[in-house]
Amino acid sequence: MSKNFDLEKALFILVIGNTKTAEIPGITVAGANPELIKYTPPADAELLYHGKCISIESIPATPDGKPTPALLTFTALRLTKIPLLVVDSGLIVKPKIPHITLGAPVGENIAKFRAMEKEDVEKVVKNGKILGEQLSKLASLLIVGESIPAGTTTAGAALKALGFEPRVSSSMPDNPVDLKRKVIDEAVKRVHSKDPIEIISAVGDPVMAGIFGILNGCRRVLLAGGTQMVAIANLAKSLDCEVSIVTTEFVANDKNADLSLAPCEVFVTKIPLARSRYPGLRAYADGFVKEGVGAGGMTFLAYKKGIKEEEFLKEVERDYERIVLKV
Amino acid sequence: MSKNFDLEKALFILVIGNTKTAEIPGITVAGANPELIKYTPPADAELLYHGKCISIESIPATPDGKPTPALLTFTALRLTKIPLLVVDSGLIVKPKIPHITLGAPVGENIAKFRAMEKEDVEKVVKNGKILGEQLSKLASLLIVGESIPAGTTTAGAALKALGFEPRVSSSMPDNPVDLKRKVIDEAVKRVHSKDPIEIISAVGDPVMAGIFGILNGCRRVLLAGGTQMVAIANLAKSLDCEVSIVTTEFVANDKNADLSLAPCEVFVTKIPLARSRYPGLRAYADGFVKEGVGAGGMTFLAYKKGIKEEEFLKEVERDYERIVLKV
Repeated sequence: MSKNFDLEKALFILVIGNTKTAEIPGITVAGANPELIKYTPPADAELLYHGKCISIESIPATPDGKPTPALLTFTALRLTKIPLLVVDSGLIVKPKIPHITLGAPVGENIAKFRAMEKEDVEKVVKNGKILGEQLSKLASLLIVGESIPAGTTTAGAALKALGFEPRVSSSMPDNPVDLKRKVIDEAVKRVHSKDPIEIISAVGDPVMAGIFGILNGCRRVLLAGGTQMVAIANLAKSLDCEVSIVTTEFVANDKNADLSLAPCEVFVTKIPLARSRYPGLRAYADGFVKEGVGAGGMTFLAYKKGIKEEEFLKEVERDYERIVLKV
Repeated sequence: MSKNFDLEKALFILVIGNTKTAEIPGITVAGANPELIKYTPPADAELLYHGKCISIESIPATPDGKPTPALLTFTALRLTKIPLLVVDSGLIVKPKIPHITLGAPVGENIAKFRAMEKEDVEKVVKNGKILGEQLSKLASLLIVGESIPAGTTTAGAALKALGFEPRVSSSMPDNPVDLKRKVIDEAVKRVHSKDPIEIISAVGDPVMAGIFGILNGCRRVLLAGGTQMVAIANLAKSLDCEVSIVTTEFVANDKNADLSLAPCEVFVTKIPLARSRYPGLRAYADGFVKEGVGAGGMTFLAYKKGIKEEEFLKEVERDYERIVLKV
């Protein structure tokens, strides 16, 4: 992708869903407690439109209170005025906002089962392709983000199924690598070929299916995320779509993040959260949360629209005060 | 609205749903039999993306086989390559294609009950507004069509609630005017004020709520339809959105069609179906079906894109052969 981005009619697409892989104890902290994890994707999406969540009371956070990266995306959308469309690709709980559905099932726990029926994945990919085709006609630049707890585990499994030796990133600095590796190794035994549909059906998740489908209908897409987008970019290598990845420096600084496996250009966005006055935001620089909900990509576009790093930090802190601290 | 349409990034939005008013025997022929009527909106939408229906075997038709106006819209979309997004605003059966949901309930039978809870209408309008805002940022021209059996009856009730004496169009030439008038008169007794939300809640339908909501988030919209769009344009008079209506000559030639009640500019599209070699298409010129699924508006845009009337007829006949006659 050329580095000249036509932001005039840019569109951010947030694809959200669930995999029951997130129910494996200890595999994800994308929720304050196990019961809340399934609400994280719809609540992230609600936050982006309304500056607050509707399906749950507080915004998604880790058990010790680190806020969802949707907060950064919210700030970037507010500053850039880039439009947002939310895509349900396998949600347990539907968001209370307008959203597009691709008819995806919830993903199974890949530690125990194949993720989805192949026919379901094919249907989702077909629907995603239609959506990608329609939106490509309107938008000058498509940027796609995700929210799916345990998505780094399914991404690791997809990468391993493709023949890589993935390391796999996480929303925790003490990344439960051994647990993930065990799940991934078990899951990959169920893969019958290197065909993307087979890999997604066997060890992927419905968000992976939805984004892969969207890429089938597009010419150029900016994938906003870390390990998950690296997996999708590899699955999409044979498609006609020109893909780039954009993510946060927090992912790039993570030795487990597998960005080196990206088959395409990777843009890394600096976000000066280390200098924040709020511990909840500084935590990102210490390796917590790091990325998600397209935070790195939308921050990147905010910079492209002329917003300076320090100004962005100030605006994120303003939203943090209003949304998290409620002052 | 200026007559210079910027078609470069035009977007067609099809808003579909159901009202149980369609279950009143004899009130609509938007389906081959009463059981099939509820499938008409999703099947219309599927036809536009796939050139065939998925939820039912044949395309929607009247009991004596006159085809859905979605056929004209399909041809126009194919020729113009204008993108389409489908919006579920109160469907009984969901279409098997990607679609946006506004969280609308199915509308009640207004002969007996208020159409919807006011809180539900407010929610749909809020969601529609968000959607309108996002799509307005992308599209240079928004054109909105509808598919909801018995929608002319709820439209007539909304017009009467606003203080008009509507005549009310229909998909039949022997329009069951007396039956409709009885339903409308009964329904309007339940209206408490001239507030649009109150009127939609009391005697409207969910598609009316969805489109009214979308208009709340837009600056300029082309409403593609007949009586139903006249009702919506009147409900939307106090909004900031500049509205125009575009419909077929078959509606304009119908003395019951109420176009004179439009509070805005009305464009009328000639479609030379009277000269078709197929009786199913000639029927439109005899007062059957006449309009729906944005057929008049999308034909209008096809002409604006330089397609000639005779060429359009030929292309519609080609699609009729493939889709209806299956030759």
